[in-house]
Amino acid sequence: MKKIMTGLAALALAAIAFAQPEAPEDAPSPNQVVEEAAAEEWVSIPAEELLVMRLTPDADGNPREVIIQLMPAPFSQGWVHNIKLLARDGWYDGISVNRVQDNYVVQWGDPNYDNPEADGEAKPLPDGLKVMGEEEYVSRTENLPDAVIDQDVGDPYAARIWHRGGWPLAGNGEGRWPVHCYGMVGVGRNYSPDTGSGAELYTVIGHAPRHLDRNIALVGRIIEGMEHLSSLPRGKGELGFYAEDEFEKRTPILSIDVAADLLESDEEPAGLTYAYEYLSTESEIFAKYADARANRRDPFFIHPAGGADICNIPVPVRPAPNG
Amino acid sequence: MKKIMTGLAALALAAIAFAQPEAPEDAPSPNQVVEEAAAEEWVSIPAEELLVMRLTPDADGNPREVIIQLMPAPFSQGWVHNIKLLARDGWYDGISVNRVQDNYVVQWGDPNYDNPEADGEAKPLPDGLKVMGEEEYVSRTENLPDAVIDQDVGDPYAARIWHRGGWPLAGNGEGRWPVHCYGMVGVGRNYSPDTGSGAELYTVIGHAPRHLDRNIALVGRIIEGMEHLSSLPRGKGELGFYAEDEFEKRTPILSIDVAADLLESDEEPAGLTYAYEYLSTESEIFAKYADARANRRDPFFIHPAGGADICNIPVPVRPAPNG
Repeated sequence: MKKIMTGLAALALAAIAFAQPEAPEDAPSPNQVVEEAAAEEWVSIPAEELLVMRLTPDADGNPREVIIQLMPAPFSQGWVHNIKLLARDGWYDGISVNRVQDNYVVQWGDPNYDNPEADGEAKPLPDGLKVMGEEEYVSRTENLPDAVIDQDVGDPYAARIWHRGGWPLAGNGEGRWPVHCYGMVGVGRNYSPDTGSGAELYTVIGHAPRHLDRNIALVGRIIEGMEHLSSLPRGKGELGFYAEDEFEKRTPILSIDVAADLLESDEEPAGLTYAYEYLSTESEIFAKYADARANRRDPFFIHPAGGADICNIPVPVRPAPNG
Repeated sequence: MKKIMTGLAALALAAIAFAQPEAPEDAPSPNQVVEEAAAEEWVSIPAEELLVMRLTPDADGNPREVIIQLMPAPFSQGWVHNIKLLARDGWYDGISVNRVQDNYVVQWGDPNYDNPEADGEAKPLPDGLKVMGEEEYVSRTENLPDAVIDQDVGDPYAARIWHRGGWPLAGNGEGRWPVHCYGMVGVGRNYSPDTGSGAELYTVIGHAPRHLDRNIALVGRIIEGMEHLSSLPRGKGELGFYAEDEFEKRTPILSIDVAADLLESDEEPAGLTYAYEYLSTESEIFAKYADARANRRDPFFIHPAGGADICNIPVPVRPAPNG
């Protein structure tokens, strides 16, 4: 057929969705809308609310670092307390990624804790962990900031959905809760009434499993390095756990630390910043961005959808430009 | 905390969602509902509607085969014609996976066709390819089978959604179209009015990018071997294309064939069947399965959602038991 290889054509087929308009009359893409945001519409994430998970280097010797933003109050704070305690205790150091189930989750923890493929003794947990009740999956507080975006329609899982305080939320007359979008991090648990401690964590690597909302604690999201988890080989065992004959595929976790501690550590190289920021979900730019996600008018598109589900409007997060 | 290692407990924490009930009073999980289906509720997929894509073996020498079910009439038949023509011409043999964008798509084709990282001449296409108009993204035919499931609520992208004829569909007063769920296969294209030939294909490896519905032709879905694509290393170039310094990460595609041709080939080993079947979306079991997906009552769950989006109700597909 054709061999057009201009820069524009090259980008175009390549971009089955994120084509970049070249002409001024083109409507901006969602990413271009975000680029218009002023510095004050971005919100800094405190280093105290970031985890740094270091995996062993990949096969080519490249370091693999995953950054997790922990969920702020009023959500899941008991589990967040536990996770920081486990990180500061060094408990996570030496655990591994034990489960990779396609279109579902990557899960990491002690390979010998409640794992169908366990082959040793579970690692003792430190003192001081809180035990949370199931009612804590949902927040009943009313002091969340008002949102510019307030979608009242089209969610099959909840009466209402919002982006507030930088996070995707759902709610009904009883309360509000964070939702299971791609990259969100949650707490593995046993059967009810167990709610999990935070020692066993997972992230979503497929279509949003929203049926898990209000059934498991969500404690954060991956804001950098997601590809180090999502591209791991899938496990052949039950539920995507690595089976006995493929334990060598488990990825060892060197450490999980609170970023604030690394910034203060003498053992870390100079120049670390761990400075990230998210686009305020209460900003006008976020409203424009959400509208652009729901109504793609940039040149690649011919039928704007007229809507988007909440997990298809991910909150923009970036390294701070002056971080 | 605890070190319970009974089989039940082991399954439970492991199963952040797919716990298997052990007691008869437990409500069945969606998978258990499907297991109840009688043989006649499964529909055979003709080998003429299957593609077999063979990648080079993995680093350990294991073969990698991906099975794609092509979309039946009335959808996208012009592109399906082209894809079979390209397969039978041997055109796909020797192309590669050139793009892996996290939470979006894996794309394969001629690495030198409209690729921002191209470094050679594009491969000529065979004669006989059809050129489709944009109106063919949507079917206006009325002869689809009636569905047991008919969800009228809760979709942000379309007035109505259904599962019919084994596929997830959306529609409005103007017509019906297939939707971009995880594992669906579509046709890369250039800017409108180009609609793509079928030489450049992609599959969804993240949250459903439903904004692509009616903007790109969907031609099928991956029914086996998805993990060979979804776990590939992400590209560092623009849009997830492999950049110039990582061309060695491109996965070569040995061949793409129509399964029916392989079954008749003297060059293939004896015993090949390529016999797959899907659960009839017009069956009562499918209705029960969809209900179980939308209202998880199996023992792990404490809050059934009361709904599910169409991409969270994947149509069950399996190798035929007597295949």
